[in-house]
Amino acid sequence: MIQVDQALSIIAENCCKMPIRKIKVAKSLGFILAETIFSPMDMPPFRQSSMDGYAFLHSELQQFDVVNTLQAGGFLNKEIKKNQAVRIFTGAFVPDHLDTVVMQEHTTVENKTVEITKMPSRFANVRNKGEQIKENELVFEKNTLITPAAIGFLACLGITEIRVYAKPKVAIVVTGNELVKAGKKLPRGKIFESNSIMLNSCLQGVGIKKIEAFRVKDNLKATEKILKHCLSAFDVVLVSGGISVGDYDFVKEALLSNGVEELFYKINQKPGKPLFFGKKDKTIVFALPGNPASTLTSFYIYVHPALKINMGFEAIHLPKIKRKISSAIENTSGKTLFLKGFYDDEKVSVLESQSSAMLNTFAVANALIYLPYDVANIEKDLEVMVIPLN
Amino acid sequence: MIQVDQALSIIAENCCKMPIRKIKVAKSLGFILAETIFSPMDMPPFRQSSMDGYAFLHSELQQFDVVNTLQAGGFLNKEIKKNQAVRIFTGAFVPDHLDTVVMQEHTTVENKTVEITKMPSRFANVRNKGEQIKENELVFEKNTLITPAAIGFLACLGITEIRVYAKPKVAIVVTGNELVKAGKKLPRGKIFESNSIMLNSCLQGVGIKKIEAFRVKDNLKATEKILKHCLSAFDVVLVSGGISVGDYDFVKEALLSNGVEELFYKINQKPGKPLFFGKKDKTIVFALPGNPASTLTSFYIYVHPALKINMGFEAIHLPKIKRKISSAIENTSGKTLFLKGFYDDEKVSVLESQSSAMLNTFAVANALIYLPYDVANIEKDLEVMVIPLN
Repeated sequence: MIQVDQALSIIAENCCKMPIRKIKVAKSLGFILAETIFSPMDMPPFRQSSMDGYAFLHSELQQFDVVNTLQAGGFLNKEIKKNQAVRIFTGAFVPDHLDTVVMQEHTTVENKTVEITKMPSRFANVRNKGEQIKENELVFEKNTLITPAAIGFLACLGITEIRVYAKPKVAIVVTGNELVKAGKKLPRGKIFESNSIMLNSCLQGVGIKKIEAFRVKDNLKATEKILKHCLSAFDVVLVSGGISVGDYDFVKEALLSNGVEELFYKINQKPGKPLFFGKKDKTIVFALPGNPASTLTSFYIYVHPALKINMGFEAIHLPKIKRKISSAIENTSGKTLFLKGFYDDEKVSVLESQSSAMLNTFAVANALIYLPYDVANIEKDLEVMVIPLN
Repeated sequence: MIQVDQALSIIAENCCKMPIRKIKVAKSLGFILAETIFSPMDMPPFRQSSMDGYAFLHSELQQFDVVNTLQAGGFLNKEIKKNQAVRIFTGAFVPDHLDTVVMQEHTTVENKTVEITKMPSRFANVRNKGEQIKENELVFEKNTLITPAAIGFLACLGITEIRVYAKPKVAIVVTGNELVKAGKKLPRGKIFESNSIMLNSCLQGVGIKKIEAFRVKDNLKATEKILKHCLSAFDVVLVSGGISVGDYDFVKEALLSNGVEELFYKINQKPGKPLFFGKKDKTIVFALPGNPASTLTSFYIYVHPALKINMGFEAIHLPKIKRKISSAIENTSGKTLFLKGFYDDEKVSVLESQSSAMLNTFAVANALIYLPYDVANIEKDLEVMVIPLN
């Protein structure tokens, strides 16, 4: 049995980035860039007015004949004389031999003649070509997270496709003879299966879309067969249940017989002790305890960072914050505890009913409280580590 | 011209929740529940063993004949005598007249006879019927956010569909003769259009999927026609550009001629002063300044909370945190500033180049710094309000 930190290190050592894929910028939100991008152009691509006003050549003159109009998008290739000006609007092209724009509020106009009432300094209100970025300058380093602002910036440089780390294809395998699909009649002794739909939503939450769920009875041959398929067709396999030591727990045996290398089995923690992590070729496998609250805790603490590594992230763990605990906690178990909690700006409280079979506490929790195995007592108002959820 | 807080109040008063829709629990992540849900069943639905071991009737006896095996999912309707026990596994049905389960580690077994070496207390290791939740008990209040844990809990109660607030259908209308679609050749005087794809990704980021983008030239008739369609077919219309006072800015006129009620126009802020907010029937309209950084700031500060109200959220604004500013700031503009910044655990710095036309600063920022119009000077190391992004 290993400690939580060891388990996390083993995961970090054994997960790797997914292959690089070219995708449309429009579909790239939340991906990690797998290439360094340089600008294909100057931005702005021409000298641009930043005001509605008049463009002219700065000199001793204060009065000009207005000879043309340039709205945004327009272009003018014509000699403008020293005593002439061009009516111009924000974003418009500034003709090559003009150097200054006066804002319209600082002019008076009569009969196609504009008089400047407040003279701007030379070069005022003109954005230079390449002022934002020049051709071949760095746009984004490799490993940048694609945000809406990044998408906007790439798009304004005319970039339509980028290389990113692909997202993994994930199989969810749910074991258990007791499980009945929701919507059907529930025979005595059975319960509704909820882990596949819950894990599916967890995966959606980290932006993964290629997800397939499989159900299998507690039977070695059937388990081996499904896992064989999943190990060859998916990047990540999440198995729910069948990983304890009961007579009907076949998952570990079926994983090993399929050639999965065991990287760890069992963590000194509560909930979620019987957690298995392994690897076959590039496919990683988590076998999660079947109790819903254990499954979910295991997802947030172990599966989530593994998926983040796959997707190319550098910050792979859910962020931790510190809060004062609202009542004393005793931990005589010698295990690391992940407690369902509720935090606000100042404090965190441990919610009642921490059973690993129960999801109702989880559904009202907004955080997990992390208590290391080697701290037996925490006094009220001492700071603890809190992992906010959602 | 109004202040930021007034604008936010007007938005809050004029936006309302979307109609209620029934959706599959499997597709409900991130929706807000529009009904109060009571449990259709007891959970667990029967008395359940929480251990692998032996079920028996607690008495003075220490030794039992093992007469049956019950794995999870099994059921047994048979009288078990006082001197008999049933081999049982975690999650399995506990036969009606038995009351206690002893964990297998506290037994020795020989020839179908089990001897208890450490007697558990009566009722030990048996989860009661309805221990987690009883039939008709409250599952979730109306207005609960659907998280993965909530999805798991609903699913384990056999609930497959729930009523939630729908998400709005959003139209993006981009105006500007200077705009060319990325991928095409860029004529002189033109720039690539980036706001539609950027706004689209912002909407994706809040979970909105029904999005359509329209492009229109700077021309009153064409603008009126597109807006007429959008106002009748969408819940939210986001117009980009054409909302200043230039001779080619037709958006406001086209909105008013289409019967849109003006709720505000222009906010005392930088960037994003010429922001228009209006309403026609139940459709809300934001006309955003066309400069990319203004568009994006306006989205985060004004459009985001409006969409959150539509979707039924109570916490509608992006969370604010406090950080010490890493250098003094002077604000003599009399306007509220939203500055692109970068924050860490302790401090926040103002990034260089805050131009509203430039997205590159935004792309490396991780926060907006909020400086109210009525504070002219902020000393280094004073706390400021920071709005983390992403």
